[in-house]
Amino acid sequence: MNDFPSFLSALRPEVDEALDRLLPDAGTEPAEIHEAMRYSVFAGGKRVRPALVVLAGEAWGGSREDLLTGGAALEMVHTFSLIHDDLPALDDDDLRRGRPTLHRARGEAMAVLAGDALLNRAYEVLGREPASAPPERRLEAVRLVADAVGTAGMIGGQVFDLRHEGDLDGRAERSRPSAGALPGRLRRQRVRRPAHPEAVASLERIHRLKTGALIEASTRLGGVYAGAGPEGIEQLARIGAELGLLFQIGDDILDEVGSSEELGKTPGKDRQAGKLTYPGLFGLEGSRQKALQAADRCLALIDGLPARRDLFRALVAFLVHRGS
Amino acid sequence: MNDFPSFLSALRPEVDEALDRLLPDAGTEPAEIHEAMRYSVFAGGKRVRPALVVLAGEAWGGSREDLLTGGAALEMVHTFSLIHDDLPALDDDDLRRGRPTLHRARGEAMAVLAGDALLNRAYEVLGREPASAPPERRLEAVRLVADAVGTAGMIGGQVFDLRHEGDLDGRAERSRPSAGALPGRLRRQRVRRPAHPEAVASLERIHRLKTGALIEASTRLGGVYAGAGPEGIEQLARIGAELGLLFQIGDDILDEVGSSEELGKTPGKDRQAGKLTYPGLFGLEGSRQKALQAADRCLALIDGLPARRDLFRALVAFLVHRGS
Repeated sequence: MNDFPSFLSALRPEVDEALDRLLPDAGTEPAEIHEAMRYSVFAGGKRVRPALVVLAGEAWGGSREDLLTGGAALEMVHTFSLIHDDLPALDDDDLRRGRPTLHRARGEAMAVLAGDALLNRAYEVLGREPASAPPERRLEAVRLVADAVGTAGMIGGQVFDLRHEGDLDGRAERSRPSAGALPGRLRRQRVRRPAHPEAVASLERIHRLKTGALIEASTRLGGVYAGAGPEGIEQLARIGAELGLLFQIGDDILDEVGSSEELGKTPGKDRQAGKLTYPGLFGLEGSRQKALQAADRCLALIDGLPARRDLFRALVAFLVHRGS
Repeated sequence: MNDFPSFLSALRPEVDEALDRLLPDAGTEPAEIHEAMRYSVFAGGKRVRPALVVLAGEAWGGSREDLLTGGAALEMVHTFSLIHDDLPALDDDDLRRGRPTLHRARGEAMAVLAGDALLNRAYEVLGREPASAPPERRLEAVRLVADAVGTAGMIGGQVFDLRHEGDLDGRAERSRPSAGALPGRLRRQRVRRPAHPEAVASLERIHRLKTGALIEASTRLGGVYAGAGPEGIEQLARIGAELGLLFQIGDDILDEVGSSEELGKTPGKDRQAGKLTYPGLFGLEGSRQKALQAADRCLALIDGLPARRDLFRALVAFLVHRGS
């Protein structure tokens, strides 16, 4: 089973079982928030982060049961970030994976609190599980997740994103007055100006923090649970960083070329909202080149792993082809 | 220095120094969120939770420097909860300690994110500090705070609070048709019906979770850092639970009888918003009786502490007299 989607599908019930076990029961009081947490956690996510924890940890001989608890914690963090980012005061999204976002389904107060509760629950889980792991490893897990989530990671990326919203639109209008009424997708494919260096730096920073930090935390966490040692963990972190970049470039490309059905949201929404995107700055072809370069760097790092190399390579191939 | 307000005033600069050291610099990027976090953390809070961590830990010979890091983490958690509770979708408060709430001052998006970042920063701190503490103690700290904050603690209390909002108003109108236009304060003092048992259970549950859980976590955390052992920690937790009750009864009484200046908010707001309060259910005199009973239980527990008994007693006296 060396194609990544098959691995992901096969792993998914195991991840969901871990999440079900580690989340409060929907019937436990106060039931409405437990039900809301589960509404968002079991909304059809692909469980990419838990899969990365498992793959990275298994590359170093970690136990899958242990790795699934860490993966579940990261999925809770990821879900927390989606719930809060969807809020009217932030991205104001009505749909997520084709279903009403939590604040549309259960109200804004519940969305704020359920997001808070998921972030907090992740630390409850990381503090307790895996019960067999030495306290030092669990503590290291708490620290690395906290670093990835905080203002030097995911939350910081969201702040930069809010700050720079509108940047690209403004620049595009000024530098491309003749593009007129062409649809954005065609416009991008024709334009091959060198990208503005400041905008590139902003884009890379936003993505490295907003998406990359948690992807990198996933591979790092697998290494910590498996006892990969400092060098092994660092190598996994570098793999995670390249994978994060591949994910983000792919997401940006899909946002341009995908259909509503594939995306579960309106295509082109990010760019139209003035967000910095890879196709917006480098064009579709330039973005694909960037992805290929990241894939090369990632494959070289994967060669050095003690195991699970084929599945990691399959993941890279999957990510590269996703947006092509 | 055996009166509690003097102790609190003397300790405050030390707590603020720890907070300043453990929060990201306001000048570090992304600066706007660090500045927002500091706006709310340094908004004039009394630092009661850090003081409790210090008192409880010093009762068992803990180091003040260590205890201050845990106290600072709990103050971050407390501030996170205030920021999110103040949001328009929740309590919709414009003022907090006489200053604009964070969402009024910096916008709702920043209030959501700064609250998230403060909760997360607390776990960053608890995972790292005190650096000299054995990993087991730091891990125990993460777990006990996570339990106190989650849906079986503070966040759960907020959910129950939202659920029961309006309960009291409805009941009061039905059972007291002749009270007419008397101001709430006078009305309460005259009415001495037995309180509705379901409403009492709800009130006690809301307060035990929403306020009590974090107060109890404060004394418990001091015991963990000081290595008080399971029995010592349990005794501190019971003291914390009684103190939490005293705080809440006092807050409810002050909400009825305090002036705007003392409160930094509109008096009677909680009761008028239909929230369950002690004076609303037991009258002012009945509430004071409840406080005296909790004080007696608390003083008996304090007698068993190895040190810091006088300051704990002074705290009890302070809390009892606050609402009288």
